[in-house]
Amino acid sequence: MDTMAAAVFDGKLEYVQDYPVAEIKPGWAKIKIELAGICKTDMEIMKGYMGFKGVLGHEFVGVVEACADPQWIGKRVVGEINAACGHCDWCARDLGRHCPNRTTLGIFNHDGCMAQYCQLPVANLLVIPEEISNERAVLTEPLAAACEILEQLPVSGKERVIVLGDGRLGILCAWVLSTAVEDVTVVGHHPEKLESAKWRGIQTTLNEKDLPPGADIVVEATGSGAGIVSAMSLCRPRGTIVLKSTVAISGDVNLAPVVINELNILGSRCGRFADALNIMRKYPDMPLSRLITARYPLEQVQEAFGRATQSDALKVLLEISP
Amino acid sequence: MDTMAAAVFDGKLEYVQDYPVAEIKPGWAKIKIELAGICKTDMEIMKGYMGFKGVLGHEFVGVVEACADPQWIGKRVVGEINAACGHCDWCARDLGRHCPNRTTLGIFNHDGCMAQYCQLPVANLLVIPEEISNERAVLTEPLAAACEILEQLPVSGKERVIVLGDGRLGILCAWVLSTAVEDVTVVGHHPEKLESAKWRGIQTTLNEKDLPPGADIVVEATGSGAGIVSAMSLCRPRGTIVLKSTVAISGDVNLAPVVINELNILGSRCGRFADALNIMRKYPDMPLSRLITARYPLEQVQEAFGRATQSDALKVLLEISP
Repeated sequence: MDTMAAAVFDGKLEYVQDYPVAEIKPGWAKIKIELAGICKTDMEIMKGYMGFKGVLGHEFVGVVEACADPQWIGKRVVGEINAACGHCDWCARDLGRHCPNRTTLGIFNHDGCMAQYCQLPVANLLVIPEEISNERAVLTEPLAAACEILEQLPVSGKERVIVLGDGRLGILCAWVLSTAVEDVTVVGHHPEKLESAKWRGIQTTLNEKDLPPGADIVVEATGSGAGIVSAMSLCRPRGTIVLKSTVAISGDVNLAPVVINELNILGSRCGRFADALNIMRKYPDMPLSRLITARYPLEQVQEAFGRATQSDALKVLLEISP
Repeated sequence: MDTMAAAVFDGKLEYVQDYPVAEIKPGWAKIKIELAGICKTDMEIMKGYMGFKGVLGHEFVGVVEACADPQWIGKRVVGEINAACGHCDWCARDLGRHCPNRTTLGIFNHDGCMAQYCQLPVANLLVIPEEISNERAVLTEPLAAACEILEQLPVSGKERVIVLGDGRLGILCAWVLSTAVEDVTVVGHHPEKLESAKWRGIQTTLNEKDLPPGADIVVEATGSGAGIVSAMSLCRPRGTIVLKSTVAISGDVNLAPVVINELNILGSRCGRFADALNIMRKYPDMPLSRLITARYPLEQVQEAFGRATQSDALKVLLEISP
């Protein structure tokens, strides 16, 4: 059996040189990984989220190395992370990311991409347009998650939007929203991250107390229960709070303001990769490279995760093959 | 100065015989109260909700006794509980119930209706149609709160709806929803209350575990944090949870399923009284009288509240004038 190098979580994170390479399933492709990203979800998995064990990682750029359909071979690709059944009502509605039978790359019943190879259904793959570099394309998955907000929530452009959280997800949400809405403010705790968030007139503040309440849309991307409490106080009656953090939020949360002000809390998760690639093409000046904090070879995956947990870190990448 | 009998909360609930009757404000009416209802919110106020002190009560039927506009005198009325400023953007949109300057009858800065008289702006009053009895009309306010769901959430009629909670609000929500949607199930803990909920094919169960998950709409009317957790597990991906309980919900609530399943949590509070009166006229067979557990004279307000807190109680009324 073939083996490969991989970052494996099995109660603890390890770099393994002889992880088995599985046989390719019918309709699936084997992808040689070039670059992978570390996501907050990966760190949550290491705390027990989803009970996942196996190869970590769901953000990647790679090249198709093997596939029954020869036209894919050699293509530079990104891939949607939910491998859906293709037969259920959700799949019929092109919403395989809610398919109840899905596996999820590096998150649920599906070995991830922090390895020399990963596998995904061909239906999940998107060829990366020539003009988009690997360093940009590796951000397709989190950028798609930000694009999901605009798929779920129609905007007029006149709204006042507050994004809570100056991590990579908060910044990406602000960037995507700023392409559709003029008045966007990011609230964070890190001056250097807030500086990175500035694009297309996005405003920033370290102190949410400085903001007038009554925002039409508040995006919660802090990943903490306190973010919800802030969002409830900043949102106008009948406004919308978008919950983006996929971490387990817990704590004593009084939801009475949701009822009194008839707020709409909208959970928002993965988005369409095609939307993310489109927005990258349409806005070549979107400063995605600012989000890259550091790059490590795969064998230094533990150092890479250590770097990713530091408070100033945005996106940490793993270089897997040149 | 004129005085009146009133049920007053000032740290504790008391029956007072000489509460001052305030002068009528311009544009307001003085209403002689005939019947008042005890609401869960009144009991929450007695635990500190809204920090309210004064005359309790916001559900009533009465007769206009004094008013600058003579055409109102002698009219049998119900009244919207939020006294709005009439000048702000919310008021301009006919959404005075979100006016930031509002007072709220018996809840916020506004003496309530568990007294011989209360006062409201004339703009808040609705004449009760002849064919609607006092015993039905006194339920206008909670029925309007149930009608609010259909104002906020368009339905096709094909949805599967679960209502959590067999209290009066849960039952009213189920009844209103059953006028627009065929498949409605109420989940509760009290067989006799569930029996009362049955109307227009509404199904009931004591055990939510018996229900298949994947409901399109789950209405949370239990007033407990556990209700939200149940709602999250019963709702399909991209479904809607309607939060109706105005009590302070608190506790350790993991909102991760909201994000993963992209749920929509919709806070829902007061509704339009006109909608409630219309639905009462349209459905004279709506079995509102089943909700009346007991009636007490105002001087027995403490006994009445005692009865209202018992687990089998639905609606307890106070008889104030014949």
